[in-house]
Amino acid sequence: MPAEPLFKPGLQDVVALETTISFLDTESERILIKGFDLIELSHEVGYVEMIHLLLNETLPDSTQTENVNQRLRDANGIPEEVWSILSLLPKATHPMDAQRTALSVLSGFDQDLNDRSVETNVHRAYQLLAQLPELTANSYHLLKGKQRIRSDKSLSYSANFLYLLTGKVPSKLEERIFDLSLLLYSEHELPNSTFAARVIASTLSDMYGALTGAVSSLKGQLHGGANEAVMNLLLEVGSPERFVELLREKLMNKEKIMGFGHRVYAKKMDPRALIMKRALMDLSEHQGDDRFLRMCEAGESFMEKEKGLYPNLDYYAAPVYYMLDIPIALYTPIFFCSRTAGLAAHVIEQHNHNRLFRPRVHYTGTPYSSI
Amino acid sequence: MPAEPLFKPGLQDVVALETTISFLDTESERILIKGFDLIELSHEVGYVEMIHLLLNETLPDSTQTENVNQRLRDANGIPEEVWSILSLLPKATHPMDAQRTALSVLSGFDQDLNDRSVETNVHRAYQLLAQLPELTANSYHLLKGKQRIRSDKSLSYSANFLYLLTGKVPSKLEERIFDLSLLLYSEHELPNSTFAARVIASTLSDMYGALTGAVSSLKGQLHGGANEAVMNLLLEVGSPERFVELLREKLMNKEKIMGFGHRVYAKKMDPRALIMKRALMDLSEHQGDDRFLRMCEAGESFMEKEKGLYPNLDYYAAPVYYMLDIPIALYTPIFFCSRTAGLAAHVIEQHNHNRLFRPRVHYTGTPYSSI
Repeated sequence: MPAEPLFKPGLQDVVALETTISFLDTESERILIKGFDLIELSHEVGYVEMIHLLLNETLPDSTQTENVNQRLRDANGIPEEVWSILSLLPKATHPMDAQRTALSVLSGFDQDLNDRSVETNVHRAYQLLAQLPELTANSYHLLKGKQRIRSDKSLSYSANFLYLLTGKVPSKLEERIFDLSLLLYSEHELPNSTFAARVIASTLSDMYGALTGAVSSLKGQLHGGANEAVMNLLLEVGSPERFVELLREKLMNKEKIMGFGHRVYAKKMDPRALIMKRALMDLSEHQGDDRFLRMCEAGESFMEKEKGLYPNLDYYAAPVYYMLDIPIALYTPIFFCSRTAGLAAHVIEQHNHNRLFRPRVHYTGTPYSSI
Repeated sequence: MPAEPLFKPGLQDVVALETTISFLDTESERILIKGFDLIELSHEVGYVEMIHLLLNETLPDSTQTENVNQRLRDANGIPEEVWSILSLLPKATHPMDAQRTALSVLSGFDQDLNDRSVETNVHRAYQLLAQLPELTANSYHLLKGKQRIRSDKSLSYSANFLYLLTGKVPSKLEERIFDLSLLLYSEHELPNSTFAARVIASTLSDMYGALTGAVSSLKGQLHGGANEAVMNLLLEVGSPERFVELLREKLMNKEKIMGFGHRVYAKKMDPRALIMKRALMDLSEHQGDDRFLRMCEAGESFMEKEKGLYPNLDYYAAPVYYMLDIPIALYTPIFFCSRTAGLAAHVIEQHNHNRLFRPRVHYTGTPYSSI
C-alpha cells in the first residue's frame, strides 16, 4: 500500500505544471516573462509588442509589430447575432457574466473549432484579442440601455479600446497610460484563473471553454475585482483623513484590505503600482484634480508605517481607470481582456504539451455502510 | 531556501482537497457516495433520491422524496429570453457549447446571485436540475431547426427528461432504464470537470461560473464524449465480426479504445456497465433487435481475452441511449445534466469550507536577460 499522499490545502506550494511562459521569481523580486522582467518590458514596449512576445517566442521588430497591429485590425468583426444575444440579456446581468456569455457564443462561429494546432490557436488568440474590446465595452453599454460604439480603425489598439469604453477619443497621455495598464495586467504566472483555464484545456477542450472558465474564476471576490473594491472605497470615503481612518478601522477589525501586498514584491512597493502611481500623478496634474492621488498617498504611507504593507497594481490602477472615465464595473472585465494574451499563451502551451489534470481527494465523509 | 517542490504531472496522486461527498475506493472496489456504495444505491433508489442524498446528508424518506419531486416540478420555468438567445446561436454550435451559453445566461436571472449560503446554493441546485433537461433538449432541437418541446409535468423527472429528448412519452421500461443511467452518472469523486468547478468556486465565484467551467471541461475529448465515441464506432462497423476486427486493428496501432477500463474496477467488469448491459438486454428483447447487444458482447469478450480490459459505464450506456432514441450528440450533455447533482454538491462544499486553489509552476523557459 502506498503511503498516504500529503494534503496541501489550496495546492499551496505544489508545483502543478512546467511552463516556459512566466515565473513569479520571489528571490530576485521579478515577474519574469519569456526571460524578460515585466517592469523592464514596460519601459521598452507596449501592449501590442507584449501580445507578440506572449504568443510567439520573441519580442517583435518593427515590421512584426506592424503585422500584429494589422492582424488585430483585420480580424473578423463581431457577428450581428452576438449583439442581438447581448441585447437580450437581463439588465441585471453582471458585466463579467455578459463577457462570459459573449465568449461562449463566439465558439459557434469558429469554423476551425476542433483544430487545436499551435498555428490555429495563435490565430484564434489574435482574433479574440481583436474582438474582446468591442465585446466587453459594448456588452456593458447594452446592459446600460445605451447605444453600441463602433471601433475606430484609425486608432491604435489601446486608444480604440479606451474609445470604446468611454466614447471619447483619448489624448496621447491617456492612450499611453491605458496601454501601460494593459501591459502590466497581461500575464502573471499561475493565478487561479490561469490554472482554471489550463485544467479545462487539459481535457483538450477548446480555447473558448478554457477562457469561459477563466472569466468565471476572475469574477470571484478572492481573485479579480480588487481594483473595483479599491475604487469604491476611495469614492466612499472622499478625503485622505477619512480614508486613513477607515483603513485603521479595518485593521482593528482584522478585515482584509484590498490593494495591498503581493507575492513577489513583499519587501518593497510593487513596481507595477509605482508605474500606475506616476500615471496617476500625470493625470492629476493634467486634469487639475489631485483628490485621488492625495487619498492614495495617505493610505500608502499609513499602511507602510502600520503594517509594512505596500500597494499593489490594483491600488493605483483603480484611480487611474477612474480618471480615464472608465465605468468601475468594467475594471475586472478589462483586466480579463488584457490577461487574455497570457491566458491564450497558457492554453496553447497546455494543448501542445498536454497532461490531463486529475488529482485525488482525501475522503473524510461517512464510512461505508450497506443501505 | 526551501527544497524544490516535487512536480507531479497532471497532479497525479496529489490530494487536492478533502471531501465528504464521494470516494473512488480502489481497495474495496467501490464508488462510495456519502457512505453508500453506488451500485447498492442503484438497486434501492432512483435519480431523484440520489439528488437528495447529494444535496443533503441523507437518503430521503418517502415524504422527502415527494418534496424533492415537488421542488423540481415547481421550479421557475426558463425565461423566454433564454429561448430567443438559443434560437440566435449559429446552427453549427456544438450542443455542449449551447448548454454552456444557456447556463451562463441564466446567471443574469438569479436575483440572489451574490448569496453563496448553503441554503441558497441548494435552492439554486434544485432550480438548475429542474431547468437543465428542458434547456439541454431544446437547445439541441433549436440548433436542428426543430420546435421546442414543453415539459409534461404529469411525468416523473426522468420520464419527462426522456420525453423532452425524444418527443415520445417513454414506456415504464424506458423510463426506468434512463433513470438508472442518470443515477450511475450522477457523481464520481474528482474527475477533471469536478476539479475545474471547485477551482473556479474557490475564488468564491458563483455556481453558474463553476458549472460553465465544468461543461467546458467535460466537452474535451479526454473527458466526456466516450459514450458518443463508442456509439459512432458501433454504427460505423455494423457487425460483431467487423467490430472485433476494428478493435484488433486499434490494439495493433496502440490506439486508445474508448469504453474500456476504469480506475476503481480494474480487475473486474465495471458493475455500472453490467447494469447498463442488462438494460441493453431488456431493450433488445423488447424491441426485437439485438444488433448492438451482439456487437458489444463480441467486443467485451475480445478485449477481456486480448488485454484483460473490461467495459466501463460509457460502453453499455451508448447503445442503451441509442435504443432509447436519444440523438448521439446529446449523450455528453445528458451526462453533464446528471452530474450537475454531484457538481452542485462539490460547489456547495467548496464555498462552505473554502481555500483558494493557487499552485506554483516550475519555470523551464529562457533565463532572465535584460532587454
